[in-house]
Amino acid sequence: MSKKDIGIGLLGLGVVAGQVARVLTDKADELAEKVGCPLVLRKIKILPQDLARPQAKKMPAQLFTTDDDEFFREPGIDIIIEAIGGERPAFDYLKRAIAGGKHVVTSNKEVIAKHGFELLALARKNNVGLQYEASVGAGFPLIAPFKHDLIANTVTGIFAIINGTTNYILTMMAKEGMDFAAALKQAQKLGYAEGNPENDINGIDSMYKLAILASLGFQTQVRPQDVYTEGISRLSPRDFRYAREFGFTIKLLAIGKLQDNSVEARVHPVFIPEDSILAKVEGVYNAVQVEGDLMGKVMFMGQGAGALATSSSVIADVVSSARKIVLGIGSLSTWKAISGKTIKPMDDIETQYYIRLAAKDRPGVLAQIATVFGNNKISISSAIQPESDEQTKTAEIVIMTHPAKEKAMQKALRELEKLEVVKEISNFIRVEDIEGG
Amino acid sequence: MSKKDIGIGLLGLGVVAGQVARVLTDKADELAEKVGCPLVLRKIKILPQDLARPQAKKMPAQLFTTDDDEFFREPGIDIIIEAIGGERPAFDYLKRAIAGGKHVVTSNKEVIAKHGFELLALARKNNVGLQYEASVGAGFPLIAPFKHDLIANTVTGIFAIINGTTNYILTMMAKEGMDFAAALKQAQKLGYAEGNPENDINGIDSMYKLAILASLGFQTQVRPQDVYTEGISRLSPRDFRYAREFGFTIKLLAIGKLQDNSVEARVHPVFIPEDSILAKVEGVYNAVQVEGDLMGKVMFMGQGAGALATSSSVIADVVSSARKIVLGIGSLSTWKAISGKTIKPMDDIETQYYIRLAAKDRPGVLAQIATVFGNNKISISSAIQPESDEQTKTAEIVIMTHPAKEKAMQKALRELEKLEVVKEISNFIRVEDIEGG
Repeated sequence: MSKKDIGIGLLGLGVVAGQVARVLTDKADELAEKVGCPLVLRKIKILPQDLARPQAKKMPAQLFTTDDDEFFREPGIDIIIEAIGGERPAFDYLKRAIAGGKHVVTSNKEVIAKHGFELLALARKNNVGLQYEASVGAGFPLIAPFKHDLIANTVTGIFAIINGTTNYILTMMAKEGMDFAAALKQAQKLGYAEGNPENDINGIDSMYKLAILASLGFQTQVRPQDVYTEGISRLSPRDFRYAREFGFTIKLLAIGKLQDNSVEARVHPVFIPEDSILAKVEGVYNAVQVEGDLMGKVMFMGQGAGALATSSSVIADVVSSARKIVLGIGSLSTWKAISGKTIKPMDDIETQYYIRLAAKDRPGVLAQIATVFGNNKISISSAIQPESDEQTKTAEIVIMTHPAKEKAMQKALRELEKLEVVKEISNFIRVEDIEGG
Repeated sequence: MSKKDIGIGLLGLGVVAGQVARVLTDKADELAEKVGCPLVLRKIKILPQDLARPQAKKMPAQLFTTDDDEFFREPGIDIIIEAIGGERPAFDYLKRAIAGGKHVVTSNKEVIAKHGFELLALARKNNVGLQYEASVGAGFPLIAPFKHDLIANTVTGIFAIINGTTNYILTMMAKEGMDFAAALKQAQKLGYAEGNPENDINGIDSMYKLAILASLGFQTQVRPQDVYTEGISRLSPRDFRYAREFGFTIKLLAIGKLQDNSVEARVHPVFIPEDSILAKVEGVYNAVQVEGDLMGKVMFMGQGAGALATSSSVIADVVSSARKIVLGIGSLSTWKAISGKTIKPMDDIETQYYIRLAAKDRPGVLAQIATVFGNNKISISSAIQPESDEQTKTAEIVIMTHPAKEKAMQKALRELEKLEVVKEISNFIRVEDIEGG
């Protein structure tokens, strides 16, 4: 089988799609050399308003169509790149592309997290590839390592900073002492947060990405709704100050663990030791630590967003798809789901906790609080009462616990709230004792 | 094409080979599931003395042979794993295996660094695969990312801590204030350094690994002799103290850079900013930072040695080779050398420098020293005279420079040595201004 060229169809002309189109043009010779024949961008499906974009005006008009049928009927397209984002119509487009026998490359975390298994089954049926390297950790390899390089391992742990917006905000809160609102505002000003940052700051973006990584790593289906998810908006500068006092910093971590065929998947703020490598991952960088029975700990780090970085992974997927087309072979992936695994309910997870609360400033208060923890079989590792407000007679109490079950902790928190001496549970944050190095 | 099984031949039964044999046995079912048919270990070529190893005694006697011809004539072997190490006879065995039409997997950095291009050409000629993921960064993916995942990029920089022994020693010197001899002794006691650690501490091991990574990354042949190499034995606790004072730490770094088709490849101790991620890579961990035009900075980190970690990468290579045999396809690699690149002579590199020297403790000395730098067009960024010894009338002077050409610096050092007021140039260390994050 010898092909004259590989035809590419592109869905979208946003910043990522625009950058992908640019690389296909600017690096055409190199890519042809690597693939074995030229990659030819044959058609771009856009919305009518995209025609006004400066980049669209620089490209030949006949490349564009605003009509779905025209796009999907275009002859000579072998690979379709989806770079629209969001669930619909991207999901429908991907299904239509695969059903039409096209190889597809996507950077769409939401579609892969929600419908990846369905799409992969459809791709297998149609003997085409579905590649999505850029869906998590835009600019650095993660999907390919899970599918190939780490395949000899039983993956037992995933610890990931996979949202650059929240990591930038938390870095500013930790380093500059900013409060959440100010840090968010600065992130928006610098273009690190969108106008509507909801999906980032409430953890939804990380939830999608963890669903993808945990599915790959633990070889089972982890759906977005299987991931316990909390955002970062309730963190205050005080929490960062106490974290530092205890030798920790605060990160929004996506955590996956496998133990006895039970999968833990959760996204929430955590205390991690300040001398761990993950604690040093700052600003808009992403990092994913993976643990396996043979390899031990492995870490991947790089840019988690941005058009240039995303295009690096999208084009790598395109080259790999194109290479397979040239060689006339189907999917090489050895990844397979292994049945029999369950999702661990959040109640059953075990971790350490940091609790900050406001109590009445009078003798015996700490004893009452400690009694609640004791009754719920939760051991306190340290309790400090760093501040009290003379006027309101309020004391701030900070407690760190030994490992305890989430269920017991939630029960203890409800009981604490009912204590007459407790004015408010100001915050509670889980602790992940990731080792340094 | 449908195969009943994939036959494996193993060269060696040292700690790595032994561990690989264990994984092939212990994970036989999983691996068969991934490959599509069983992987069967058919023959192990050992030395007569290996038969006395406990592991050999636990395995069926007919698996073993001490005879080369018997090993290479064994029918039903598809993939040969070389895990002997060293240049000979490993190189001859690999040639013989490839010439005999076997796919080969090796963890041998020395053979790949010295003869990789010859072996790859031979493999192409015989339409078999040559895989060597475990040759650099034993337990984490590096070779595969360079060949596939980063392929859309022009790689412009490689900054690597790729020798665990030296990194452990440097970590002990930095953290515990040990001198070199004490740190080496401790590394040997803990099994992190071999009885004869020459190749590690003098940078040879890192040199081989950088030759491999730079060849892949810059798509040109970088031979071991193209890599400028210095070891770590001349570092003293004083250097670490001054490094810290200036905001740096000291690492043995393998550095590759590409600029205007000119390749820089060098291994030597460097000052790197103490807030950079690479500075946090401690003990026996390895880390490789790669910079590319699209992806920006990407980092890979994990264990650089150890039988378990190495087996993770060797088995991944075996699975990938086996999968290709099952599918009846040859190499998928899109990596190709691009001609026209040259190796930059060490004289032409430009970097900042730290110089520590002992001078006579009297007025005007610093002026004389500064004049030498000035005459060689080297700007001093700071000069301190932290200590002087009353008895010997000796002052220690520490100088940090702005970027300068290596040739000018070497000339300046020769001139400094000749100054009557300079008693000794105690050390000079290059500075690599890797950004934090």
